[in-house]
Amino acid sequence: MQKKKVLVVTGIRSEYDIVYPVLSHLSRRSEFEVKVVVSSAHLSDWHGYTVQRIEEDGFVIADRIDSLFMTNRETQRPKGVGILTYALAQTVEREAPDFLLVVGDREESIATAIVGNYMNVLTVHIGGGDPVWGNGDDPVRVAVSKLAHIHFTTTQNYADNLVNHLHEDAFRVLFTGNPAMSNIHNTPAISLQELSAYMNFDITDGNYIVLVKHPLSSEKDIAAEQMKIALDSLEVFAKKHNYKVVASYPNTDPGAYDILSVIKEFESKPFIHFNKTLPRLQFVNLLRHAKALAGNSSMGILEAPSYKLPVVNIGRRQQGRLTAGNVVFVDYQQDEIVHSLEKACFDETYRSYISGLQSPYENGDAALLMADFLSSVDPKDKKFLVKSNLC
Amino acid sequence: MQKKKVLVVTGIRSEYDIVYPVLSHLSRRSEFEVKVVVSSAHLSDWHGYTVQRIEEDGFVIADRIDSLFMTNRETQRPKGVGILTYALAQTVEREAPDFLLVVGDREESIATAIVGNYMNVLTVHIGGGDPVWGNGDDPVRVAVSKLAHIHFTTTQNYADNLVNHLHEDAFRVLFTGNPAMSNIHNTPAISLQELSAYMNFDITDGNYIVLVKHPLSSEKDIAAEQMKIALDSLEVFAKKHNYKVVASYPNTDPGAYDILSVIKEFESKPFIHFNKTLPRLQFVNLLRHAKALAGNSSMGILEAPSYKLPVVNIGRRQQGRLTAGNVVFVDYQQDEIVHSLEKACFDETYRSYISGLQSPYENGDAALLMADFLSSVDPKDKKFLVKSNLC
Amino acid sequence: MQKKKVLVVTGIRSEYDIVYPVLSHLSRRSEFEVKVVVSSAHLSDWHGYTVQRIEEDGFVIADRIDSLFMTNRETQRPKGVGILTYALAQTVEREAPDFLLVVGDREESIATAIVGNYMNVLTVHIGGGDPVWGNGDDPVRVAVSKLAHIHFTTTQNYADNLVNHLHEDAFRVLFTGNPAMSNIHNTPAISLQELSAYMNFDITDGNYIVLVKHPLSSEKDIAAEQMKIALDSLEVFAKKHNYKVVASYPNTDPGAYDILSVIKEFESKPFIHFNKTLPRLQFVNLLRHAKALAGNSSMGILEAPSYKLPVVNIGRRQQGRLTAGNVVFVDYQQDEIVHSLEKACFDETYRSYISGLQSPYENGDAALLMADFLSSVDPKDKKFLVKSNLC
Amino acid sequence: MQKKKVLVVTGIRSEYDIVYPVLSHLSRRSEFEVKVVVSSAHLSDWHGYTVQRIEEDGFVIADRIDSLFMTNRETQRPKGVGILTYALAQTVEREAPDFLLVVGDREESIATAIVGNYMNVLTVHIGGGDPVWGNGDDPVRVAVSKLAHIHFTTTQNYADNLVNHLHEDAFRVLFTGNPAMSNIHNTPAISLQELSAYMNFDITDGNYIVLVKHPLSSEKDIAAEQMKIALDSLEVFAKKHNYKVVASYPNTDPGAYDILSVIKEFESKPFIHFNKTLPRLQFVNLLRHAKALAGNSSMGILEAPSYKLPVVNIGRRQQGRLTAGNVVFVDYQQDEIVHSLEKACFDETYRSYISGLQSPYENGDAALLMADFLSSVDPKDKKFLVKSNLC
Repeated sequence: MQKKKVLVVTGIRSEYDIVYPVLSHLSRRSEFEVKVVVSSAHLSDWHGYTVQRIEEDGFVIADRIDSLFMTNRETQRPKGVGILTYALAQTVEREAPDFLLVVGDREESIATAIVGNYMNVLTVHIGGGDPVWGNGDDPVRVAVSKLAHIHFTTTQNYADNLVNHLHEDAFRVLFTGNPAMSNIHNTPAISLQELSAYMNFDITDGNYIVLVKHPLSSEKDIAAEQMKIALDSLEVFAKKHNYKVVASYPNTDPGAYDILSVIKEFESKPFIHFNKTLPRLQFVNLLRHAKALAGNSSMGILEAPSYKLPVVNIGRRQQGRLTAGNVVFVDYQQDEIVHSLEKACFDETYRSYISGLQSPYENGDAALLMADFLSSVDPKDKKFLVKSNLC
Repeated sequence: MQKKKVLVVTGIRSEYDIVYPVLSHLSRRSEFEVKVVVSSAHLSDWHGYTVQRIEEDGFVIADRIDSLFMTNRETQRPKGVGILTYALAQTVEREAPDFLLVVGDREESIATAIVGNYMNVLTVHIGGGDPVWGNGDDPVRVAVSKLAHIHFTTTQNYADNLVNHLHEDAFRVLFTGNPAMSNIHNTPAISLQELSAYMNFDITDGNYIVLVKHPLSSEKDIAAEQMKIALDSLEVFAKKHNYKVVASYPNTDPGAYDILSVIKEFESKPFIHFNKTLPRLQFVNLLRHAKALAGNSSMGILEAPSYKLPVVNIGRRQQGRLTAGNVVFVDYQQDEIVHSLEKACFDETYRSYISGLQSPYENGDAALLMADFLSSVDPKDKKFLVKSNLC
Repeated sequence: MQKKKVLVVTGIRSEYDIVYPVLSHLSRRSEFEVKVVVSSAHLSDWHGYTVQRIEEDGFVIADRIDSLFMTNRETQRPKGVGILTYALAQTVEREAPDFLLVVGDREESIATAIVGNYMNVLTVHIGGGDPVWGNGDDPVRVAVSKLAHIHFTTTQNYADNLVNHLHEDAFRVLFTGNPAMSNIHNTPAISLQELSAYMNFDITDGNYIVLVKHPLSSEKDIAAEQMKIALDSLEVFAKKHNYKVVASYPNTDPGAYDILSVIKEFESKPFIHFNKTLPRLQFVNLLRHAKALAGNSSMGILEAPSYKLPVVNIGRRQQGRLTAGNVVFVDYQQDEIVHSLEKACFDETYRSYISGLQSPYENGDAALLMADFLSSVDPKDKKFLVKSNLC
Repeated sequence: MQKKKVLVVTGIRSEYDIVYPVLSHLSRRSEFEVKVVVSSAHLSDWHGYTVQRIEEDGFVIADRIDSLFMTNRETQRPKGVGILTYALAQTVEREAPDFLLVVGDREESIATAIVGNYMNVLTVHIGGGDPVWGNGDDPVRVAVSKLAHIHFTTTQNYADNLVNHLHEDAFRVLFTGNPAMSNIHNTPAISLQELSAYMNFDITDGNYIVLVKHPLSSEKDIAAEQMKIALDSLEVFAKKHNYKVVASYPNTDPGAYDILSVIKEFESKPFIHFNKTLPRLQFVNLLRHAKALAGNSSMGILEAPSYKLPVVNIGRRQQGRLTAGNVVFVDYQQDEIVHSLEKACFDETYRSYISGLQSPYENGDAALLMADFLSSVDPKDKKFLVKSNLC
């Protein structure tokens, strides 16, 4: 029997972490053949050169596509989409996959959906139907939903949005939950001692907050100022309560460079430690033991509930998304940030409430649900290939 | 007062004809500054090198972007989108327009919408909300609607689709009608003698049919066969009734090359004349005097009602679109085609019914409506720039 | 033992015919693994879609790179080089060849040499040291010689030019002759009857001339006019002597479109037949039986001597190149052209002189010489990789 | 009178410093119109975003071309050349310059020469004929010489190489000297106090060495190790003699990222200060007062003689180039480096010998010589446009 060929396109670690359990599951099933196209930030040493993770995980890399231009200007992203679209069409012609699979709302997603549309390859999109807005990413996510042929959503609510608000056929849509949840459940445990040794930063007493903070493209010009307020607030909190902060580098969006320049000012302060990128083993355990998550990463919305982790989301990024109830949204105000962190770390009633929450982002084994769905689809089925109900 | 800069992106003559009245109108109003980005088929001698028309019309050309690859493979279109997106971002950075304006559902539209989205330039889209499907173009048209900031639709019905089926804000949407209608009303008259002389093909008795036939990407592999059936049928009809046929070359979609090879077989037959491209003056007058339009061009749907012209639409391209009642859809069956042409040309009851139809594609002076709308919008208004109601 | 991987880059049939015997020979030797990168005109239906030949010959295609833009403007070639260079780097990283091999002076050659230089892959160039000038190709050929690491030349004289005029190390240079000669010697014979049947054009009496005529980029603006003179002259000659002409379509250089429009005027005349592209079997036999070759193809210089074929080279293209003595150079003057054709076809002393000439473009089995040389080179040898004697 | 349009292409600060006096001079002469195409590292915040300098200097920017991919892999450079070549052809078509002008041996130079060759624009190259080798840059420099139409060389010796070793026509070649020399002579003086204040690093006693160290592409894998040896040696020297070191960030060549990671280890040490980029005013004065220059920058060869500055060149980069006698070449050996620095800073006989040396890189006012030459050339002169003496 002919295997079903799945070509996964990924550009950055955050995406790869979501798609990794799907890749693993598909690879273990003999009916699928899986390859990965690696692009953008994965190939950048400035972003941890995470293509190495993909190689270490043992997946076959179909092509390495350079698509991240070294600039902080607004041209970076459309030019990146352009080059990636051109190059990906070459890969897709050679590999002739049955399915293209892509996650989220970044350059990779729109480039993949365009190629799939014009080359008549069933395009599978994870993460549609999410009503968040504020970033250039968000219209891209919705445009991808209208181009893609199959939608795996992270909540039931988002699946409903695709059908009711975007006129997608119900038969194309499946609520699978966020596959990244399997990382949480399946990653082995390591101790705070091991973690501290790995990072060379002492968090053995468990009194620490994790910070993941990205720029918001529509507020790019004040990205540095915003980062300064966030870090100042965390410093005040950390000194007052003898806490530590473990922070990550930002993604590649416009404004990232300005954030990096603020990070430089704080890098030598003893209360904080910055990781350019952490392996999954360390990162999952870091979150398991953390007292709270601060910043504006989608992890606060999507993954923190499964960690039973309170989140202080600073600024407008992520606003509008469905939360499990574990997220407090605050402005760039030091008092507000410090106060919310104190509630998150020390208000036992609140912490106990959060540990009882149910994540709307889980629906069993997401990778299994996805694989079964793809198993049931004939890649040449016109019902899936030609969208006859566009608007 | 600072002028509002409008940058129009066009790739093929059919698009340019639609946008030309808008360009002309905006150029005459002192509050606007207009430039054109010319790409794709406009720059191809194989497609009539229509950039010359744009030059002759006196518009300022901001850049000439080569984005049409010389191949008939499915890679042609995604690679074209990719290169155009990269190059257009360069133009947009330099020109710093207030508005990007684009028509329809081709490579230009998605490239422009991506650039506008990431570079925070208000993107104006003409032609959204149209539920037609069957081509790779169609999902592109809908994706563009979700990326673009302002929508000018060609029917009221399509405006409603954008709001009710695609969740677009009503304040972004205006039913303007198809601007190409002004070409019909404003183009001077020339006689059939002049027209015959221009083409070196005698249609002075007025007994002729116009044929415009493009490939359908989802039926690309049988494009030649379909064209053969169409031309054979027209030949039968023409010989039987002593009619002539004036035909156009196809657009650049996959399958076009195969159509061209069939055209070659018919080119020397006396009943038919093929134009690679006709100037607007000749083309409008050709339609004014024609007995019927055959093929599968969107003109049959959009413009023919304003000419009071019966249309025989062959095959599935254009199916699903709102018609004024002037279109008969037929299969690739010689009998059916010949019969429908006979009804269109000789059934006076039917012809009189058609000449009384009202076009749903008109709503007054489309270009004026568009210009007034753009005049009322502040290009930095966050209400327009940031879409907060995505799905 | 690890095989030596050879990646051959080709963009047009004329190149492929030269490199085909090398590909065949390398493929038969177990120490080599050979793949082909196919680009440009090979992928164009307008140029015969000759990638099919490569597939039929059974070679592994590493990637199909679209790099031919559909325009007749001067931008076509630099933009093509640009896109090809970008895309080829992706292929070379994935394939990790030991040698890159390329022929001649077209876009493929400079793109390949740039990639080989920056990615430290030994670049093998066939066709350097040739002093011909007049085209944009010619400086490219010399630039490639300074970038490439190994040079296989088609004459001893050209090998000397590389060492004495361009300061290349002698150890990098080998006079192999033109590998296309093997096509001449190895292609099976077919009769004029079979050939006539194949083309549906009667040349069974053997009284015919072959015409291969390309544009000269520095005279691009008068390409049509020049083609007209050439075809008029051939018509005069053919009618006078009851001869036929078998002609080829031009290559993709600027001016080619204009030549095509002149071809259209002659296509239906009975004295002449145009082939878009002929398979090797037919093409070699066509030349074997021809009375003379006219036009300005490099075949007149390189291959015609091995066919003992007199050549009338029209215009400046090919001037400056070493000839065997079988070529007469004439201007775009009808009298001159007709007169030279008469000498070539009917002057038995001249014809007998030509049949006794020795081709300077042969040195035994070129493919064998090349393979033995590559066999002797260690692809990691710094002596070959780093050029320490640049100028 | 029609002005002669000169389009200058630049990608990095080191190039811009060389070409700046030419730009200034041409801009002041009414017969020339000058614009700049800005690409690559100029647009990268990671490299100081030096496009701002060009804007502040008041030159008209024709286009901003993103061509630097964010990776440390070998693909970075060929892909950069590819994209730049594509995009530059667009700019050249729009601007229709009479001359393209480019400096040196980087991606910009080969992209510009390819565009100039195919689009028939006279290409002026500064810096040819230099026999240095070891880098992927070097074959590029020579290939550019064979593509370019006019050569301005920095020494008489290099002019001779072009004619005698590369077969270039003598009429195309002019020894002008290095135009960057004018920066040295024309930049106003500022004191060590002002300089120290600007950098926030005290060098008021004048006891300091300048370090400029780039990777060598053929030794890319040991770039970090080499940088470590260099910095360790400078630390030993600085501590022993109470000296300071003022260092620059590396360029964008492969290996640069590894150098940056070593810089990070040294950045907080008090003996050394790193500048990402210094304005010309500060940089020229820094060199004027320095005791010695260390590293492997071409400035040691080209500009240091005019500063009467001893140079310790570490490693093989720059070997083979003509020096004024002010350069000592040393291996990556701590003893050798420290010893040579001691000789350069404290051996008064040696210092006095160096201050008497004549720079072979000066020949009067280079910018004036270049402008006069371009003034004398008719840009449509076939003698210049068509190279008839290629090899």
